[in-house]
Amino acid sequence: MSRKIRIPARTIMTPGPVEVYPSVLRVMGTPILGQFDPMFLKVMDEVKEMIKVPFQTKNEEAFAIDGTSRSGLEAALIALIEPGDKVLIPAYGRFAYLLGEIAERAKADVIYIEKEWDSVFEPKVVIDAIKKHQPKIIAMVHGETANGQMQPLKEIGEFCRENDLFFVVDTVATYGGAEIKVDEWQIDVAIAGSQKCVSVPAGLSLITYNERVKKVLASRYQKELGLSKDIRNKRHISSNYLDLSQLERYWNQERINHHTEATSMIYALHEGLSLLLDEGIENSYQRHKINDQAIVAGIKSMGLELYGDMTTKMPTVTPILIPEGIDGESVRSMLLEEFGIEIASSFGPLQNKVWRIGNMGYSSRKENVLHVLGALEAVLIFHGANVSPGKAVQEALNVYLTSK
Amino acid sequence: MSRKIRIPARTIMTPGPVEVYPSVLRVMGTPILGQFDPMFLKVMDEVKEMIKVPFQTKNEEAFAIDGTSRSGLEAALIALIEPGDKVLIPAYGRFAYLLGEIAERAKADVIYIEKEWDSVFEPKVVIDAIKKHQPKIIAMVHGETANGQMQPLKEIGEFCRENDLFFVVDTVATYGGAEIKVDEWQIDVAIAGSQKCVSVPAGLSLITYNERVKKVLASRYQKELGLSKDIRNKRHISSNYLDLSQLERYWNQERINHHTEATSMIYALHEGLSLLLDEGIENSYQRHKINDQAIVAGIKSMGLELYGDMTTKMPTVTPILIPEGIDGESVRSMLLEEFGIEIASSFGPLQNKVWRIGNMGYSSRKENVLHVLGALEAVLIFHGANVSPGKAVQEALNVYLTSK
Repeated sequence: MSRKIRIPARTIMTPGPVEVYPSVLRVMGTPILGQFDPMFLKVMDEVKEMIKVPFQTKNEEAFAIDGTSRSGLEAALIALIEPGDKVLIPAYGRFAYLLGEIAERAKADVIYIEKEWDSVFEPKVVIDAIKKHQPKIIAMVHGETANGQMQPLKEIGEFCRENDLFFVVDTVATYGGAEIKVDEWQIDVAIAGSQKCVSVPAGLSLITYNERVKKVLASRYQKELGLSKDIRNKRHISSNYLDLSQLERYWNQERINHHTEATSMIYALHEGLSLLLDEGIENSYQRHKINDQAIVAGIKSMGLELYGDMTTKMPTVTPILIPEGIDGESVRSMLLEEFGIEIASSFGPLQNKVWRIGNMGYSSRKENVLHVLGALEAVLIFHGANVSPGKAVQEALNVYLTSK
Repeated sequence: MSRKIRIPARTIMTPGPVEVYPSVLRVMGTPILGQFDPMFLKVMDEVKEMIKVPFQTKNEEAFAIDGTSRSGLEAALIALIEPGDKVLIPAYGRFAYLLGEIAERAKADVIYIEKEWDSVFEPKVVIDAIKKHQPKIIAMVHGETANGQMQPLKEIGEFCRENDLFFVVDTVATYGGAEIKVDEWQIDVAIAGSQKCVSVPAGLSLITYNERVKKVLASRYQKELGLSKDIRNKRHISSNYLDLSQLERYWNQERINHHTEATSMIYALHEGLSLLLDEGIENSYQRHKINDQAIVAGIKSMGLELYGDMTTKMPTVTPILIPEGIDGESVRSMLLEEFGIEIASSFGPLQNKVWRIGNMGYSSRKENVLHVLGALEAVLIFHGANVSPGKAVQEALNVYLTSK
């Protein structure tokens, strides 16, 4: 067995994980500290504050969970759900069903409202379903990577707050790349990940929640046996590892010994968020938007069709219909093997029907966009597809030159 | 806010996290790959095989979970436990109670057998308790970091297998540093972590399990909604994130899309395990043993007392009784602030009574041992403790010189 890792150069244009900033890669090489070393606690405190910025929140609580994005989704849902609680899941793509899956496993009574994946919900449809089903929790996805659609949340959030319901939102695919207003949209818990627009390797989930959720957590807190047998709670959260009521007390001044923090990943997150804040969150949105316009212009001019409603398209993902008669996986393989470019396929009903080009974080760069457009055109010509040659890169260049 | 991470140099002599090998730190700086990139799948396959070596197992299944050690403990327990199942926890230290805590949250009927933390169980005591309580699962800790004791497991494992019970063992604090024989000791599931004797940053849990457990997992498998609505299972595992039946299918050739693998941490694990295998697992045990002898000889010659039964002491942790009248936390602070050395305190009944010197992985080096002994002596003299000056380092040197 060869024991040396040999990693080829890749242009990663999937909806996550994406290319990592060089300085993030470098900072992971910094020696570790013990998780209660005062110098490490300082890093954690800084990370807490920085996490809040892309969420646009004044919440006291914001921290990272040592697990990939879905660990945060599960932590959020099991913190609020008690067996039998009604949870409403408006589903317009794959990851809504993940929220449902987690809620079902937490023994919630889950109600789905379903639709075609090509567009989002009219807020009124969701509000009517809430009125009808009277759930305790509404869990939605802000941006669905599977189909590239982005749900307007403000009206729904307002209705939930007025009616004292909990509004849980998966912002994994938009955090840092598109506007999220946790406070203004009245989101109770929002969850993101490290591996998309923050350009940090996968392995951390980011979470923020407000006082309403803090109150629930306080009422369900159970200290761990072995640290103390005193604080038992019949309504304790079902998981120990993903117990937000303990995690909160690890990240705040109480500093309970819950787990051994993933120091190197926290360094990486610190640097990734620093870069995002130094760029300016509005500038980051603008960069994602222009690169998205260039991708869309290029793809269209090639003669390919996009999937889904363009008025609610996420700036961070572009779903493309695979042309009739073309083997989608063969195109992806050739892109990877000959050009070193990775684009994504999709899931569920969109599997083998749609390719997805990601436009996230450090991967969201002009040179990457131009490279993927030129390469995709060449690979499609090679596969005998009917595309208009020479146009895609020109159209994208045009977007960049006129946006200056 | 300063956005630049400034990390001081530390000699980390705690029972984890420990210092990370320089080449492990470097490999984390390698650019990431998509989690289904064929080149990354090759890295995962190699990691699978390497994980098995310190476990001394021929099990088909061995992989990493994207979470700290306790995520693996929880994954293992919730995979086997169904509500009402009887779980026996023989507790001789803090982390047995963590196993109990997790089992209780999984709605098991948990029976503890408890004892003073200063020694391990006579195997007969555990076997008698099994006979009496007839549990489905016995969960034990191999090495208890809280008190430095290491439980002999072979007889218990044999009895469990003969009686068709499941034997789950937490080997977090011994994996790579002390002998573990998963197959010979008839352990059904063993769980370790990255941040101790493998000298990789915290953030990954390592797990292996046999065909008996695989069969249970196959019977509880539920595919995720959003990928397919076909495979539902009434006996599904309670967590989605820590569902071993899905994780297994992500790590094997089925490659289901469960989560976005923490690529950089997997690179680190690959390098950490490579170093361990290059050193030779027996040589690693020998290095830990000699450094342990040096620590023990040094501490004793200083006039300090060790905690617990020396015949069942772990080679990777040395618990020291804090001398009467000495402020343990003041000593630890001075070691950290003046000497850059971190040693640990302890938990539960041993809090403020015991210091712990770790001896794990890359931290288990002669120069670290000599440094911590000299510094501890100096700090104790500074604090007015009654120690024999000048002896500790000499005694440790003597161990090294006679072991050549």
